[in-house]
Formats: sequence, C-alpha cells, structure tokens
Amino acid sequence: MEDREYMMTALRLAEQGIGQTSPNPHVGAAVVKDGRIVGLGAHLKAGEPHAEVHAIRMAGAEAEGSTVYVTLEPCSHHGKTPPCADLLIQSKVRRVVVAVEDPNPAVAGRGIRKLRNAGIEVELGVLKEEAAELNKIFFHYIKKKRPFVTLKWAGSLDGKTATVTGESKWITGEEARKDVHSYRERHDAILTGIETVIKDNPSLTCRTEHAKKQPVRIVLDTHLRIPETAAVLNDGLAETWLIAGSGAPAEKVNRLEKKAKVLKTRTTSMQIEELLQTLGEMGVTSLFVEGGATVHGSFIESGMFNEVISYTAPVLIGGEGAPSLAGGTGIKEINKAVRLKIKSAELIGEDLKLVCVKKEG
Amino acid sequence: MEDREYMMTALRLAEQGIGQTSPNPHVGAAVVKDGRIVGLGAHLKAGEPHAEVHAIRMAGAEAEGSTVYVTLEPCSHHGKTPPCADLLIQSKVRRVVVAVEDPNPAVAGRGIRKLRNAGIEVELGVLKEEAAELNKIFFHYIKKKRPFVTLKWAGSLDGKTATVTGESKWITGEEARKDVHSYRERHDAILTGIETVIKDNPSLTCRTEHAKKQPVRIVLDTHLRIPETAAVLNDGLAETWLIAGSGAPAEKVNRLEKKAKVLKTRTTSMQIEELLQTLGEMGVTSLFVEGGATVHGSFIESGMFNEVISYTAPVLIGGEGAPSLAGGTGIKEINKAVRLKIKSAELIGEDLKLVCVKKEG
Repeated sequence: MEDREYMMTALRLAEQGIGQTSPNPHVGAAVVKDGRIVGLGAHLKAGEPHAEVHAIRMAGAEAEGSTVYVTLEPCSHHGKTPPCADLLIQSKVRRVVVAVEDPNPAVAGRGIRKLRNAGIEVELGVLKEEAAELNKIFFHYIKKKRPFVTLKWAGSLDGKTATVTGESKWITGEEARKDVHSYRERHDAILTGIETVIKDNPSLTCRTEHAKKQPVRIVLDTHLRIPETAAVLNDGLAETWLIAGSGAPAEKVNRLEKKAKVLKTRTTSMQIEELLQTLGEMGVTSLFVEGGATVHGSFIESGMFNEVISYTAPVLIGGEGAPSLAGGTGIKEINKAVRLKIKSAELIGEDLKLVCVKKEG
Repeated sequence: MEDREYMMTALRLAEQGIGQTSPNPHVGAAVVKDGRIVGLGAHLKAGEPHAEVHAIRMAGAEAEGSTVYVTLEPCSHHGKTPPCADLLIQSKVRRVVVAVEDPNPAVAGRGIRKLRNAGIEVELGVLKEEAAELNKIFFHYIKKKRPFVTLKWAGSLDGKTATVTGESKWITGEEARKDVHSYRERHDAILTGIETVIKDNPSLTCRTEHAKKQPVRIVLDTHLRIPETAAVLNDGLAETWLIAGSGAPAEKVNRLEKKAKVLKTRTTSMQIEELLQTLGEMGVTSLFVEGGATVHGSFIESGMFNEVISYTAPVLIGGEGAPSLAGGTGIKEINKAVRLKIKSAELIGEDLKLVCVKKEG
C-alpha cells in the first residue's frame, strides 16, 4: 500500500504539468529513503529536465540506496536531455517503481530493461490506469501520430444548439461555459467550421484566469470564405490556421497568408483522416473540436475521435429547423455507429456534463 | 426524530399503491401506542377503504389514546367511503401527524380543522416534500383538472432517435427499454403520434412481469390515417383512443369506432390544451408521452408538461436528415423556452437516464 501512496504523490506532481508539457508527457517522481521523502520532481516544459532529474537532484547524496517512484517509464534514449535510466543507475538507487510503460517506440520497455540489467529492482504497474489516463493524449499521439480528438458540444435537453431563428446565447449556464475554457487550455488546438466563424465571430481563446498558453485556432474553410474582419484573423491573441480545399483560389490564399497560416488539403473536400495526419505532422497532439452540426457530423462519420464532452441544459427548444448537435451524411446502420462509454456524468451549475470515451483507444 | 421515522413507515406503505389507486392518491398510515406500532394501513384501490380505516381496524381497542401517522390529510367529506377524520375522532386517538395537506378542494384543510375542533392534537408537515412527491400526479390533477404529463424519449448522444434511413432498433439498451415499461404501468394513459403507429406499429402495452394494469393507448391522428391492421386496434391488450381533428371523415370514424374510442377535437388541428382538458374530464390523471419529434414538438410549444424522462445512449449517429428528439415549430427566443431542473441523472445499463422537472408545478 505504501507503494501506491508514494505513486499517488508522484501523480499529483505530474498533474502540475497539465497544459504545459506538450508534446511531452506529464511525469512526476518521488525519491524515498528509509521511509522519508528525500526528492520530488515533475516535468514542466518540453526541453527542460525530466521529473527524475529534478527529484534526484533534490535527493542529492540520499539518492543512493533509495526507492524512486516515477509515473512513466524512465527514458532510455538521448532526446533533448540525457537518458533518465542512466541517471538512476549512476545515482545508485536501489529500487524503481514505475506506474506505466512508455509506449513511445524510442522507449517501450527499454528503460526498464536498462535498469534491471544494472541490477536495480523494478516494479511496474502501480496505479497504472491513473497514470495512463493522465497521459492519454501523449500515449495516443505517440502511437497514432495524430492528435487526440475531443468533440465538445452544448445543447438543450432536446438536442438543439440554437432556436429556429438561430438564437444560441445562452442555452447552457455560465459555469458550463467556464468549464469549456479549462479544456481549451489543455489542448494544443481548437477546431471549428467556417459557418461558426461567419455566424458567431468567436475569438476561440482560452479565457481562464491564468491561461498557461493559447491553443492554435483552426478553421475548416474549404473555399476560404472567412471574412477578413474575423476576430481570429485580427485579434493577435493566438495563432490561426485555415484549412482550405485544394480548389481554394490562390489570390485568396495569398491575401489570407498575411494574417494566418493557410493549409491546403490534397482534395477539394475535407477529409478528416488527412487533416488529422497533417496536424499530427505539425506537432498538434490534441484537438478540441467545437464545431457546429456539419463539423461534428464529419468527425462522427470518420469515427476519428477519442472523447466527447457534452453539456446539456435542462431547457426545451423544439423546432424541426432548429440547429442540432450533429449533421452531415450520418451513419446509416445503427450497428455501424461508434459506441462510447459514459465515463462521468455531473452537474455543472444547472447543466449536465457528460464525458464519453471511445471503447477502444 | 421519532415522528419522521413513523411517517417514513407510513410512506413506505403508501408506495405499495403506486400504479393502482388512480384517480385516488397513494396514502399510508401507522398507528402508534406507547412506542409500539399497533396498526398499519394503505389505500390500495379506488372505492376500497382508505389507509386510516385499515390502520384503525388493525389497532382495534388500542386506537384509543394513540398517535396516528398519515401521509395525507384525512378526508372530511363523504366520498365512496365515510370521512376518515370522523373515524379518527370516534376512535378517540390522541394525536394525528400529517405529512401534507390534501389540495383536493373538498378537503383542503377541513380534515385537519375537524380533528382539532374535536380536541385532537394535529401536527402538519412531517416529511412533507416526500409525501408531495409521492402524490405529485394526484396533486396536479386535483388542482388543474388535467393529467400530469411526462414526456419520454430515447436517443443517441447527438440527439437522434433513428439513423437517416429510419433505423431505430436499438439505440438504447435493454435495461433502459425495460425501465420505460415501469413508467407505463404508473400512468393512466400513453400517448403517441400517428407517424409512430404507421412506422413502428407498436403495441404500447406495459410489459413488466406482473403489470398491475394496462394504460389506455392514445394516438394523435388528425386525419384518421391509422391502418386498420394496427396492433393497437386489434390486439385487445388495452383500450385505444384515437384523437381526430374535427375534419376527420365520418365514414372513417364510424368504421374505427368498432375497434377504438374516437374523440374529435373542436378544431381541425391538434391543440394540446384542449386535448389535456378533454382527457382530464375523462378521468385520465397521468399521461406518458412517447411520441416522435412532431408530438414532442407540440407539447414543448404548449409548455403543458410536468416532467421529461430522457434516455441517452452513448452512441453517435449524425445525419442532417436523421430524426431528432423534438420537431414542430419550436420556441423562437431562448428566454421563452421552458426551463427545467435536473432531478436525477443515473446510469441504466450503459445509457444515461435523466429526469427533469418543470420549475413551477
């Protein structure tokens, strides 16, 4: 049980890096000697020291003969920093407890083997699920080379995102809308459709009190219809990328490139798979999709998403023509539709927040 | 605290009548003498003795000087049975603890006054909220003279009730579908639209193991388009009422009247208010609406409903043309939409069940 408690300490440390370590994972470490914590560390920013380095430094001479708790397998390769496995061996620690193996192909068990070969006792799997959940974005990205995708929507109890006249302010309450901003902060990029930009002119920034960073704003805009006065092109609050179809006029591309990055897809229409692959190559590890019905419809059809966060306000709007949560072509047969699992259901103010995850990664 | 415990006993007894006392309320009673329960009773069927009668009978001579706990104010008027207030007075009970006043205009405080005038100590309001919730249908009906309306729907996480091709079997799981049947049992009538009958040919019966009764099946069918082979017209499992517009052809009315009750509205279209008033006059105290988008849309526009029970399956279907939870004309301005309160959110199998109630009665 002691192992679990110290690992929990390491996990709490790892969580301090949420929203600021991308594309690296969140890692925490604790060094324990004779029942006393002698070192603590967390990875806080890509390029800066790993959690183990901070913890071993803090432990100093006490590291010798100690037990090190680390939430992710220590690295075995030379990246921006030297391998942590080597550091632990040099520091003569006695035992290393690891929550979860690093799926990064450059590590993938090699760190643990290195430690064991040096005669260090290694225990794997303590609080494994908690550690994997904490790094679900990193794990997904490192394996699939495309961003972890979260679809987010907010609607009425009867599934409308606006009234028949297009009124959408506000269906959900202030608390729910505030909650959304904490998700923006945790993602590398926010994606929306051109319709939303034309209709609402959103700024798509993270407006939490001390935002650690501003995610890139991505607009799906096949024909580059974006108004030149759009907030995302002019407010300078975060980067903006426009995803245009291959048929988008060169003249428009040139003009918009002064204000945003313009990415052209290989085809005239929007292919989610191609898009995610491109974003992955550009280093986007996580994507928060805040689209309208059309954008959500495209993601649903592609099946390429990992989580859905749904806010439901207990209000009834009705209307055959009222905008709904998801449009597009749709799935024809129910048994072909993507089944999720409800991970949590909680009240946020007067609204319900539902987090659903795909059954397989 | 003792009062609350005995009242809880009376409430548990009252609950035994759920689904079988309509149009009467659910009532339970306990008689306590010298710290010992000497009598218990519940109202189980309209026309049969009230809870107090059963409990006082069981107590026999012990009733004298006892305390009687009753979940609803004892009646003061001669209905199908003599007034319970008189019985308590004749039995020389010392004290009566009442959970909630009877809003029935024929009682409304008179029962309590009668007891007090006879020198009996009366305490009102113990577990008042629980008692009012138990009899919410009766309270609503007795005050408004129209049925307590519960809208029920089941859909995907993105608010669809079927795919674009109309496939709807099954979005929610078996447990959720079973749960629906327990609600059918508790309502006097189930209502659906003609589209649902044409498309699904449902039997609309309560298929719990020992169904206490079968609710009346009501179909909104303005032009009497119902197929003569429809299950609800031929299976003989429960009564069926067709609600037709004033313009429905007389010849069709005559033919269908052999198999169902045909009610004509005063206007050619369906007015929810008129419908509910008519159903109230016919003794329907509770209505379970299991419609498609059009029927739900009509109820939403009318604002005449009390609760919404929503089952959400964690599956994504998409499709601009896929049937949604609610259609109709819809509410134009968000601040005119009916706001509800989420009363409960729970998992039923893999699906989410949400119970929402209107803020005012």
